[in-house]
Amino acid sequence: MGNLNLVTGRPADLRLYLVTDYELALKAGRTELEVVRAAVAGGVTAVQLRDKTRETGELYRAGRELREFCASAGVAFIVNDRLDLALALEADGLHLGQGDLPLEVARKIAGERLFIGLSVFTPEETLKALAAGAGYLGASPVFTSSTKPDAGAGMGLDGLGRVVRTAGQTPVVAIGAINAGNAAGVIETGATGIAVISALVSAPDITGAARQLRRQIERNPK
Amino acid sequence: MGNLNLVTGRPADLRLYLVTDYELALKAGRTELEVVRAAVAGGVTAVQLRDKTRETGELYRAGRELREFCASAGVAFIVNDRLDLALALEADGLHLGQGDLPLEVARKIAGERLFIGLSVFTPEETLKALAAGAGYLGASPVFTSSTKPDAGAGMGLDGLGRVVRTAGQTPVVAIGAINAGNAAGVIETGATGIAVISALVSAPDITGAARQLRRQIERNPK
Repeated sequence: MGNLNLVTGRPADLRLYLVTDYELALKAGRTELEVVRAAVAGGVTAVQLRDKTRETGELYRAGRELREFCASAGVAFIVNDRLDLALALEADGLHLGQGDLPLEVARKIAGERLFIGLSVFTPEETLKALAAGAGYLGASPVFTSSTKPDAGAGMGLDGLGRVVRTAGQTPVVAIGAINAGNAAGVIETGATGIAVISALVSAPDITGAARQLRRQIERNPK
Repeated sequence: MGNLNLVTGRPADLRLYLVTDYELALKAGRTELEVVRAAVAGGVTAVQLRDKTRETGELYRAGRELREFCASAGVAFIVNDRLDLALALEADGLHLGQGDLPLEVARKIAGERLFIGLSVFTPEETLKALAAGAGYLGASPVFTSSTKPDAGAGMGLDGLGRVVRTAGQTPVVAIGAINAGNAAGVIETGATGIAVISALVSAPDITGAARQLRRQIERNPK
């Protein structure tokens, strides 16, 4: 199955992919929904709900607001890690890390209800993800983050290029310390899109920052 | 639907219900599986996997071992909070707290695959849980825990009795600072069973401690 956006009925547009961060939004004095609204106004095409801390019921209630807004905006709504929430929120997609449920297990439970993306770091992981039926790949991390050193050293643009070539027709979303200064180079590797957290969640002007990122992507569309 | 144990095909036996605690087991120098094996040898009839810290993939791998052992022992296997893991592990049941997914939402996703228990504190919550189709009720907390003060003040035996009478034919499992010294009184209220964490996970002799708890329950079977 493809990357179907349940609302638009078209393949999900993964060009500019916002990953939410509740704590980071709070620090900037914003709610998650405010961040998402402002980001979508600036051209974000996909939103991932990611949270490892809040209780499931609270996440479900917060997720319903985000899901509803994304549906009304025609933007893909994706849940990180939690297949239970992805199903409960009727998300378009589920994103799995290498430390989450095996993709085959998630697929068996979800049936045809979700597209499922998988984080990869190497061509080997990319091949395994393709064999498991990943709908898209999250190449992560591309650059070494100064604020998240535990994420490890980035694969760099060369590493990203190898993942992109291995992925063939499967979309690759690049993530890891990407910003307006390096986004164009990321897209030049052939990646379908870029995913960001702090570049939008912590931006003084979220809508303006999203517009700027979109411009970098449009310079080199896949 | 009832409390069906998928392996035995009989209603799940909820008389002595162990809730796992990975960190507490580690502190006692034991693996979760060692705790569960020793507890089942002493008469534990149901095991709940509960963990808010480990990554989903790690929980899935650990849960598979527990699930397999419980199936071989004919003991009910229940997952706390995480419907995704309950489905992935083909558990017998799911246990939801008041802060987890709404029961109706979980039931819609699970179909007929799981029995679903719900934590309640008052007769009002009990009535709501029954209306939502709870397969059993976890009356929690019964006593005030000295080690978990954030769990709040217990409902006491009077409060438990009210929950039990409100529940009618639906099984009630009592939890919260229950041990061999107060278990008999808990069962005298008409509760179906007792759930324990530290009374078994931290016991010097887990099997012996489980036998002692079972004796208290057998003195006053429902």
